[in-house]
Amino acid sequence: MGKLLIVGTVAFDEIETPFGKTGKVLGGAATFIGLAASQFDVESGIVSVVGDDLPEAYLDTLRAKNIDLEGVEIVKGGKTFYWKGKYHNDLNSRDTLITDLNTLADFQPKVPGHFKNADVVMLGNLHPSVQLSVINQMEKRPKLIVLDTMNFWMDNTLEELKEVIKHIDVITINDEEARQLTEEYSLVKAAAAIQEMGPKYVVIKKGEHGALLFHDENVFFAPALPLEEVFDPTGAGDTFAGGFTGYLAATNNLSFKNMKRAVIHGSNLASFCVERFGTERMKDLTKEEVSRRLLEFKALTQFDIELK
Amino acid sequence: MGKLLIVGTVAFDEIETPFGKTGKVLGGAATFIGLAASQFDVESGIVSVVGDDLPEAYLDTLRAKNIDLEGVEIVKGGKTFYWKGKYHNDLNSRDTLITDLNTLADFQPKVPGHFKNADVVMLGNLHPSVQLSVINQMEKRPKLIVLDTMNFWMDNTLEELKEVIKHIDVITINDEEARQLTEEYSLVKAAAAIQEMGPKYVVIKKGEHGALLFHDENVFFAPALPLEEVFDPTGAGDTFAGGFTGYLAATNNLSFKNMKRAVIHGSNLASFCVERFGTERMKDLTKEEVSRRLLEFKALTQFDIELK
Repeated sequence: MGKLLIVGTVAFDEIETPFGKTGKVLGGAATFIGLAASQFDVESGIVSVVGDDLPEAYLDTLRAKNIDLEGVEIVKGGKTFYWKGKYHNDLNSRDTLITDLNTLADFQPKVPGHFKNADVVMLGNLHPSVQLSVINQMEKRPKLIVLDTMNFWMDNTLEELKEVIKHIDVITINDEEARQLTEEYSLVKAAAAIQEMGPKYVVIKKGEHGALLFHDENVFFAPALPLEEVFDPTGAGDTFAGGFTGYLAATNNLSFKNMKRAVIHGSNLASFCVERFGTERMKDLTKEEVSRRLLEFKALTQFDIELK
Repeated sequence: MGKLLIVGTVAFDEIETPFGKTGKVLGGAATFIGLAASQFDVESGIVSVVGDDLPEAYLDTLRAKNIDLEGVEIVKGGKTFYWKGKYHNDLNSRDTLITDLNTLADFQPKVPGHFKNADVVMLGNLHPSVQLSVINQMEKRPKLIVLDTMNFWMDNTLEELKEVIKHIDVITINDEEARQLTEEYSLVKAAAAIQEMGPKYVVIKKGEHGALLFHDENVFFAPALPLEEVFDPTGAGDTFAGGFTGYLAATNNLSFKNMKRAVIHGSNLASFCVERFGTERMKDLTKEEVSRRLLEFKALTQFDIELK
């Protein structure tokens, strides 16, 4: 069993899709990452900040998955980060209606002592200086540091983002962001350019079109499972990241072969996440459901062609 | 060795991409299908119509691949179908600048006697009544009839298209067209709806995002090979169809397992097609190059996860 440190938001989300709307529900990158990683034999802990308006039941949801919350600062009288978004009809794009940073505005991450030796660190989408601060607090270089980011940081804190990128092993980024970061349209060229910036592994997420893993001359692709209906894409990318890092921490094997498996596990878990609003599907997901769907992934992608 | 009958255009294409432009070059659905199918041990013949303005050298390009041209009517004094198009910067969309049907306007397909017993019939994108006429000329029901079509026929000849669709086994169609034909946004639901219309197999082409094969409860996905540069997408869909049908005709095996292989072969060949203008890459493609790239496809998609 490996140790996984997760840094990211624990938040209120409010979501509207063509299928309906939620009130304020549990969300945030660290939440989805933690829930996904809990499918594996891993000791995980979250570093985050919330206000005391966050219902204790939300934290209990995470504790029930054996996620250590010692690194989650609860600010007395503070308000929890709140995001409200509305998806367009095709669910591939959304408008952010409200972003209230609240306690996140002054977030000073503190890594608990017993997680300073984590094997894998998953830096969820946050200000690059927060991500860098966590790396600097580790007492030894983790075996693997994975970073997720988004266009907002490229627009506003590009130099700081480039600095933290130098210190990581894997970046997860979507296709448009990879193009923005590198000014290369071809994803193959973009991935090569990002590898020049630091991370030896580049995961490019293409939403419903799957995910690509690049490392040197190696490329691996995992499709998204074709679903009858995508209900709510919120958290799918973080769920992918949680499955990816959870599997790698649990197996303690950083070969490319094992990274491929991690990409499949991440894609597999993300396929559940989008079936219900918010964390609904991930909260009670069983190992049996996960295994059954892995069989579907195999059937979807595996073939036998004998080559002479 | 199976017999493959190909129906489709042999044409002049004139192409502009961000990388440059061609003059009039050899193009057309039947051309690309035939070149791709020639990679397999198959006896193939084309049914088409051209004018006597088509250079004999173009026909020789096809003859050199052992493609039977007895079914290609050459209209004396007639002009060959001409298409001119310009791709946008991302190469995912294009504007048609000129479409001159010319001899194609009155095309009455004539299947040569020795191809009326073809094992596989590939009906390239044409007026549905032309496609139906070919089916009706066969002396026995082919083992497999594959049809490609496009939104133009849905807009203008929907009832005739629906009629021919009743008589086929496999349809190849792109994602937007599948949505248009069925009024279902979800490709899983669209594929199910199309299967209700007749074809037991539905191939949905997603361009750079790969292709899906649906049959009953089975789904298989083949990605497009991530390329440094897509140079000219013209003919990629037809090349896919040629690889798909050529492989099935050559192997004479219509199991779903073999259909999966056919999808991979089609995707593999399409990855070459887009590397050069028009037919340039396909004309001289060697079996060694094809095999080498199949290895890349395996590395791209195959993984081993043991399931308990």
